[in-house]
Amino acid sequence: MSRYGIPVVEEAVVETEEQAAAAARKIGYPAVLKGLGAALGHKTERGLVRVSLRSEEEVRQAFRDIRQAADKDWEACVVQPHIAGHREFVAGIVRDAQFGACVMFGLGGVLAEALGDVSFRIAPVDRFSARAMLEEIRAAKLLRPFRGEAAVDADRLTDVLTGLSRLALDEPEIAEVDINPLIVLPDGRIKAVDALIVLGNRKPVSRPPVDAPRIRRALDAMANAQSVAVVGATSTVRGGYLGIFGCMRAFGYEGRLYPVNPKVDSIDGIRCYPNLGSLPEKVDLVILAVPAQAVPAALGDCIASGNVNVHIFTAGFRESAEEEGEKLQREIEAIAREGGLHVVGPNCMGWYVPSRKMLTWNAAPAPAGPVSMISQSGGNAQEFTHHAAKTHRLYFNKVISYGNALTLDSPDYLDYLAGDETTSLVVMYLEGVKDGRRLLSVTQEAARRKPVIIMKGGLSEAGARAASSHTGALAGSRRIWEAFFRQTGAVRVDSLEEMADVAAAFHYLKRTPGRRVGVLSVGGGQAVAVADACAQAGMDLPAFSPATVKKIRAFIPPAGNMIRNPIDSYLAFMRTEYVGKIFDILAHSGEVDNVVVSLPLDWLYREAGQENFIEVIARYLAGEGRGKLCGLPLVVAWRQYQDAEEFRRMRAVLEDILLAAGVPVYEGLNRAVRALAHLERYSAFVKAGQAASG
Amino acid sequence: MSRYGIPVVEEAVVETEEQAAAAARKIGYPAVLKGLGAALGHKTERGLVRVSLRSEEEVRQAFRDIRQAADKDWEACVVQPHIAGHREFVAGIVRDAQFGACVMFGLGGVLAEALGDVSFRIAPVDRFSARAMLEEIRAAKLLRPFRGEAAVDADRLTDVLTGLSRLALDEPEIAEVDINPLIVLPDGRIKAVDALIVLGNRKPVSRPPVDAPRIRRALDAMANAQSVAVVGATSTVRGGYLGIFGCMRAFGYEGRLYPVNPKVDSIDGIRCYPNLGSLPEKVDLVILAVPAQAVPAALGDCIASGNVNVHIFTAGFRESAEEEGEKLQREIEAIAREGGLHVVGPNCMGWYVPSRKMLTWNAAPAPAGPVSMISQSGGNAQEFTHHAAKTHRLYFNKVISYGNALTLDSPDYLDYLAGDETTSLVVMYLEGVKDGRRLLSVTQEAARRKPVIIMKGGLSEAGARAASSHTGALAGSRRIWEAFFRQTGAVRVDSLEEMADVAAAFHYLKRTPGRRVGVLSVGGGQAVAVADACAQAGMDLPAFSPATVKKIRAFIPPAGNMIRNPIDSYLAFMRTEYVGKIFDILAHSGEVDNVVVSLPLDWLYREAGQENFIEVIARYLAGEGRGKLCGLPLVVAWRQYQDAEEFRRMRAVLEDILLAAGVPVYEGLNRAVRALAHLERYSAFVKAGQAASG
Repeated sequence: MSRYGIPVVEEAVVETEEQAAAAARKIGYPAVLKGLGAALGHKTERGLVRVSLRSEEEVRQAFRDIRQAADKDWEACVVQPHIAGHREFVAGIVRDAQFGACVMFGLGGVLAEALGDVSFRIAPVDRFSARAMLEEIRAAKLLRPFRGEAAVDADRLTDVLTGLSRLALDEPEIAEVDINPLIVLPDGRIKAVDALIVLGNRKPVSRPPVDAPRIRRALDAMANAQSVAVVGATSTVRGGYLGIFGCMRAFGYEGRLYPVNPKVDSIDGIRCYPNLGSLPEKVDLVILAVPAQAVPAALGDCIASGNVNVHIFTAGFRESAEEEGEKLQREIEAIAREGGLHVVGPNCMGWYVPSRKMLTWNAAPAPAGPVSMISQSGGNAQEFTHHAAKTHRLYFNKVISYGNALTLDSPDYLDYLAGDETTSLVVMYLEGVKDGRRLLSVTQEAARRKPVIIMKGGLSEAGARAASSHTGALAGSRRIWEAFFRQTGAVRVDSLEEMADVAAAFHYLKRTPGRRVGVLSVGGGQAVAVADACAQAGMDLPAFSPATVKKIRAFIPPAGNMIRNPIDSYLAFMRTEYVGKIFDILAHSGEVDNVVVSLPLDWLYREAGQENFIEVIARYLAGEGRGKLCGLPLVVAWRQYQDAEEFRRMRAVLEDILLAAGVPVYEGLNRAVRALAHLERYSAFVKAGQAASG
Repeated sequence: MSRYGIPVVEEAVVETEEQAAAAARKIGYPAVLKGLGAALGHKTERGLVRVSLRSEEEVRQAFRDIRQAADKDWEACVVQPHIAGHREFVAGIVRDAQFGACVMFGLGGVLAEALGDVSFRIAPVDRFSARAMLEEIRAAKLLRPFRGEAAVDADRLTDVLTGLSRLALDEPEIAEVDINPLIVLPDGRIKAVDALIVLGNRKPVSRPPVDAPRIRRALDAMANAQSVAVVGATSTVRGGYLGIFGCMRAFGYEGRLYPVNPKVDSIDGIRCYPNLGSLPEKVDLVILAVPAQAVPAALGDCIASGNVNVHIFTAGFRESAEEEGEKLQREIEAIAREGGLHVVGPNCMGWYVPSRKMLTWNAAPAPAGPVSMISQSGGNAQEFTHHAAKTHRLYFNKVISYGNALTLDSPDYLDYLAGDETTSLVVMYLEGVKDGRRLLSVTQEAARRKPVIIMKGGLSEAGARAASSHTGALAGSRRIWEAFFRQTGAVRVDSLEEMADVAAAFHYLKRTPGRRVGVLSVGGGQAVAVADACAQAGMDLPAFSPATVKKIRAFIPPAGNMIRNPIDSYLAFMRTEYVGKIFDILAHSGEVDNVVVSLPLDWLYREAGQENFIEVIARYLAGEGRGKLCGLPLVVAWRQYQDAEEFRRMRAVLEDILLAAGVPVYEGLNRAVRALAHLERYSAFVKAGQAASG
């Protein structure tokens, strides 16, 4: 421990009462005596720790007591000086099944476990991350001057965490470390006074080597496939689900599409091939839609014919949670690795690339855009793409549903999309991942280049159970995943709706300069809701300076208009030039970083004597109004409660105008502010990275 | 403290070294010595606490040290036995501005403040509540056997909290009490070893006496007004907002409606009166819509003419946060109290009673129903009633927007609605309340009779600021409001949308027998989402027994259908009789208390070769399917992502059929499960109350 920068208390190991007395004389009083032995866990409970020993007699008595209490487990005693301090922390190492070595920091002492006030990082932990860990615990105020004692020496505490990180990586046979307590002395120095090291003989998991450039080329070939073969193609004339061959045709795939099925001569008038070897060319992508039992042979056909890029649509493997499926998956994995195949799937929906008119499921938005998606769940890929297109006019570049991740897993897809020039942001739906450390490093690299927004399914304990049987993947524990998000700069969202909301903020606004929000709204109840929403999302709603209030008051009268933040003024909306004046004042005040406009559509619709008043407001905000903000991000939130077709129509008009102009629009203030908060945190992350590297 | 049942450590106050030594001999070693003095706060930091004193010499030395350290603040020392225990709690009394005496319990010791792990109750605290407080802290596991020490004597700890509650109510001059630490001995006994009592000379707030029966009668007269006068009525022919007189006419008010305005002879062809005295009758409700400055005189006219029920629509009082408005509010409060007026408002929208066709704002749903609403914000009253009607077909009985609460406040309205036979459940939007203790007792009583669902605006710190300037009410702190909800059985929601979701669950389902949910769904990603949603809402998603699985497997084949909880079976939906069989099996299994069906509308719409398949499913669920559940609550959640008019239409069809049959319907699983969770907690609360009283 000392070698790894951890300040350890002075100590002497003693085997006789005489030695104990001598050691205490040397170390000084008050002293501490503890039992020592491989079988001696939970020493305090067993009465094997005696503190505040103030004389030789007390030390001798303690020695005899401990020896007796430890009985046959006794090996020796250790003498230490008594370290007094009100603050006790814990630091340690654990190994996570997905992410490997992790470092922990938290509130320590005998209550450590009961309090559970800890933070984690996946190793390696740099000083910056270690420093952040200190601040993440609920009791972080103990790091500052406390009840007459000095602030903790945070540099040394940081050393402990980075030292543990190095230790964990250097010594794989160490399974766990607990330093508890790590006492803070009144002068702020820290001392480790007790530690437990658990050795394991877990061998490091050996993973097949990753040839990243080759995988990137393979994925690029699939994503831009000029030729596709569908093995197990069937007639599409069945109503309902068309089959993959039918889906590709229905979406208008423009490359060369070959049905493969030995049982028929043609499908929908198109010549059918008996196997891959009989095709006129090697194809960029083979799709297997045959029964699970036929997949091993079909993979053999891929290898024999030199077709290495394969999407296995078929289900019935590990996700079935039955031995038969498990066995079949092990079998096809061996075949695929042996044959050097790149496999998307099995048990997945596959590809959606609108620019190529490529789609292996029933229906998807036709337009192409800059958002790419990686989804372990096919249902979520389908639903999310529809939802994001409908709600935020977000369109997609490449969407991959990858299911059981036989040879290609989320890090491979993300690595490819991180380098894909036509992808501006990546959204991911993840359940588990096999190689957590690689996901960590790939995500860190990707998030430096473009926003990566991740929804991790199965974070609850019950959810983890369902995830495990769904994709056969191990879902990690909540705390380690929290560390993952902190360490990568990936944005964590908790639902598909939030994922779309946040993606829209990133797509339309790119960055925000800070967390201060100025809000223009109507209604007192709404004003309270604005403040609650900002507080909950971690955004600031600063009070305006008297000068700013005065400037606005110059044209907006007091009656019925509250000039504070949020500004509560019906009048401002009635006369759109007032909105412009307010924007201009806010933009030049230096008091806000973002502007949110909350529109009560029902109210505005009925007012101002104009049938199309919502359109008037939308056009103003999208054009002249926005111009007055001098580049400050503008977000519009609407609410609408009355049930009439005319109201639904005006919502669409509002969204069309604003989204076409690049102003993100949300239903309800909470969603708008939360999306902005995610954008703010990512902007700060990018800025910090630039500052660090520049 | 001893008198109030708090086990206090034995102690002796000593003024000389000799007395200290004698006291220590009597009490025994190890002993503790502390400084004593009115000016001696933060004793540990000042070095005025010495523990583990093991000899007379150590006691004498400690006495001299403390005397010196305390210097001129020294008054005496106190000698106690050294109480050793790993667990330290804190208990105390605080007085909240809105709710008065509150009792606190939490993790104690020197870290108490830094950890902030505490729970609160508003006094009086009974044993049942006190017991619950113990379990609410994060570190509640410390109450159980801990590191070789016995479980805490919870009965005695409960005594401490109920004793503090009595003390707080008996002795109003005690402003605060802190017992810290309250040490747990290894055998589980507790001892208070230090306490601080802060005396204040705050006089108890004197509140005007409440004549509840009279107020109920007044509110009932207003709610069922046969005659209404609008003072300050204006022509309604202006487009946009109609004015209150116009709103009442437009909604079709069927009672006698009198415009009062000395400046005109008639409005819209209706005879106008110069003042209230000239009306042909005393009216059930006077509405004041005159400028703020004219309100005092108008109230005088009410008193002079014997019209005591008044709704003041006018704004510009305390909510303006300006001195002028504050002064005006004090003035009209004095007039109203003096004259015995019942005032709704000022600064509020007033009344919406559809059965009377009474409405004092622009637009509201025409049908009447059993839900009543109390809202401090007029905007929220308007928006909520539209939203709940549109989304859940919930309709209203009596809606009151009451703004600044001049003489009538939320407890008055709730007390009235609790006894109103035609109201089956009450929803409230609250910002602040003047008499928190009365709100507490009224809500406790109301929640025993019918569900009370409350959204408290301004719970965040920033939100509290906005609330304060909005209605001039003091918004309480988050922790005390949490106690309020725990103590009353009122259901807490965080948004208007959640309020409607929860109200729908209560309205359609009334009660649920428990928290176990069985789910029928489609898709692996959705299965993970179900589990996450249940875990987050605190509902159980139990695994089905092998017997139950086998029964379902008897007719649903393995391929593509996962029989676990959630059941993931597309096939089941394709053949509705399978849904019925599953319902029947679940209903007879005894393994679930509720059934949730999650419908992917986009998928189902395209399947089964039936144009109206959604309608087929809806009719089955609403009729035969539901019948098979033998009374288990059924909730339907839908999701729909594709953007087409035909999809929107089928949503409406689904909702119409299910809601008409009394099956609540939600957009998305999270909302459905969360609403069900609220219903479950309230059902358990009611059951516990019945068990206690029966």
